Amino acid sequence: MIDEQTWKEVVDRLEKAERVVITTHVNPDGDAIGSEVAVSEILAQKGKQVHIFNHSPTPKLYDFLNGRGWIEHFDASRHEPLLEEADLAIILDISDWARLGEVGKALQKSDVYRICIDHHIVTDGVAQLMVVDRQASCTGEIVFDLAKRVGADISGRLAEALYTCVLTDTGSFRFTNTTPKAHRMAAELIERGVPFLEIYERVYEQNSPGRICLLAEAIRDLHFENGGKIAWFRVTQKMLKRCNASYWETENLPEMPRSIQGVEVTIMFAETAEGFVKVSLRSKGRVSVHDLANKFGGGGHPYAAGARLKGSLDEVVPVILNEAKALFR
Amino acid sequence: MIDEQTWKEVVDRLEKAERVVITTHVNPDGDAIGSEVAVSEILAQKGKQVHIFNHSPTPKLYDFLNGRGWIEHFDASRHEPLLEEADLAIILDISDWARLGEVGKALQKSDVYRICIDHHIVTDGVAQLMVVDRQASCTGEIVFDLAKRVGADISGRLAEALYTCVLTDTGSFRFTNTTPKAHRMAAELIERGVPFLEIYERVYEQNSPGRICLLAEAIRDLHFENGGKIAWFRVTQKMLKRCNASYWETENLPEMPRSIQGVEVTIMFAETAEGFVKVSLRSKGRVSVHDLANKFGGGGHPYAAGARLKGSLDEVVPVILNEAKALFR
Repeated sequence: MIDEQTWKEVVDRLEKAERVVITTHVNPDGDAIGSEVAVSEILAQKGKQVHIFNHSPTPKLYDFLNGRGWIEHFDASRHEPLLEEADLAIILDISDWARLGEVGKALQKSDVYRICIDHHIVTDGVAQLMVVDRQASCTGEIVFDLAKRVGADISGRLAEALYTCVLTDTGSFRFTNTTPKAHRMAAELIERGVPFLEIYERVYEQNSPGRICLLAEAIRDLHFENGGKIAWFRVTQKMLKRCNASYWETENLPEMPRSIQGVEVTIMFAETAEGFVKVSLRSKGRVSVHDLANKFGGGGHPYAAGARLKGSLDEVVPVILNEAKALFR
Repeated sequence: MIDEQTWKEVVDRLEKAERVVITTHVNPDGDAIGSEVAVSEILAQKGKQVHIFNHSPTPKLYDFLNGRGWIEHFDASRHEPLLEEADLAIILDISDWARLGEVGKALQKSDVYRICIDHHIVTDGVAQLMVVDRQASCTGEIVFDLAKRVGADISGRLAEALYTCVLTDTGSFRFTNTTPKAHRMAAELIERGVPFLEIYERVYEQNSPGRICLLAEAIRDLHFENGGKIAWFRVTQKMLKRCNASYWETENLPEMPRSIQGVEVTIMFAETAEGFVKVSLRSKGRVSVHDLANKFGGGGHPYAAGARLKGSLDEVVPVILNEAKALFR
């Protein structure tokens, strides 16, 4: 819950600001990009000057939200002067300096007033004003409340951006963070004309032939441990070549074995071109995989974590499997 | 919309009935089984005697809704006498005599009073009282309203059954029939304690190793036509053997190529053991595939249809592809 005093201050700061910069975490997801676009649309309606720049480029998947071309890839020489001129910076979907990348460094050097809007556990006090609700299904849900409080016209781009937040962060209303409020937000946005079919298609139905080929390769390499509770597979450089696929196209692959009866934990071992193995761990929710990733210098969430290990697949796979099996002891 | 007069009569008939039989269409889906369980729970709360019997056996997938074991596979010798004793029959999710199978025949012979609750286009006047709302996302949505009108305690099994209806008929809140009301219904049911994570898992994450192996085989056989607008693949008897899979495990396979960028229509050609080819057509919503299926003696909906053709894959595939390509002319 965000208290009334905090709301009052956010609304006040927003009304008074003239030049606002907006940013989010590295490797932004749908909630991060959606929140940025939503906040920028709210501010544009109020006649404010807005700049959005992120450490990472915008994933192609979310290009459809960037119709105005406002989201830029951070470039110190162009963006640091904008930061100097700005009277407000809004940090979305993250409260961790490290995960703000180069933009975080620039923000720390600047003395612009900062507001952080987020629904994760607070890592750092990245802003003077922290607007955090751990109960919110997504950052977009907080921005939705904000839009109402400032009397924004919630339609068009703004509504689409907000819908993308709640759709993607709840995995189409199925992940554990799906709340009654998330559903009611979706209901309202659909009433306001959001093309929900099209947004689903843009987000979830954009597989490349390379990615679908990798899926087949991954299935053929499926192995099971602990009576089927653990499912694992490898993605080799050879597979990538055979499928004419890029490394980033392995992105959603670790989700695949989730759909198999009885599987609790899935592990993807992806061989990089530089002699590393990227280990991606997913859990259906009964076992935490975060500590396992942490043990090997990685991190993440309880049910989605990862690590990068030096070595070959033959070296890394047995080490990780040993630890994974121990999760069920 | 269902008018007040109709609601009044349904509630009245329900209150007065003592022995109720409930049925639904052949090959019942989540909305059909969910509605049956929901109506039976409402009636059980009122102390009514309830029997549920269907032409088809209950898909294993929905066994979790049948905790009381009330849903039975129709057996004329046992169930026709129950029909004679009943003072009310409730037909759910269908208004087509043919799709009620053997139960439909038994109902037509009996003179029990019938109520039909459905959200599809009415085919036959299968009941004296037709409670039909074409705007409802699912039949369960109408049953949800009914539950409120009769003051049922919407929790436990009843809430789970209703959630299964809306979850499955909207494909987890993404199909074109997803409405603001569907989301608000989900919100209320989650507030009433529905274990939505578990229900999703039970419905969507029960792939067998055989089915996932078939998925890999299908991907390896993917072909594209019309610049990628049509995606098709075959399932041969050999593939089924290699995967140690049964024919029914091909069920959701036609959905797979949907996720590929640019694909509008997908076609699965499945070779049966009896010298037929089952053609399953899916459309993302821009092109209707119903007429194509119809042309070959099949049927279905605009965006999901099918037909069974005598012949080998080599004979059937080119004939159907020719017609499919014409859809884009």
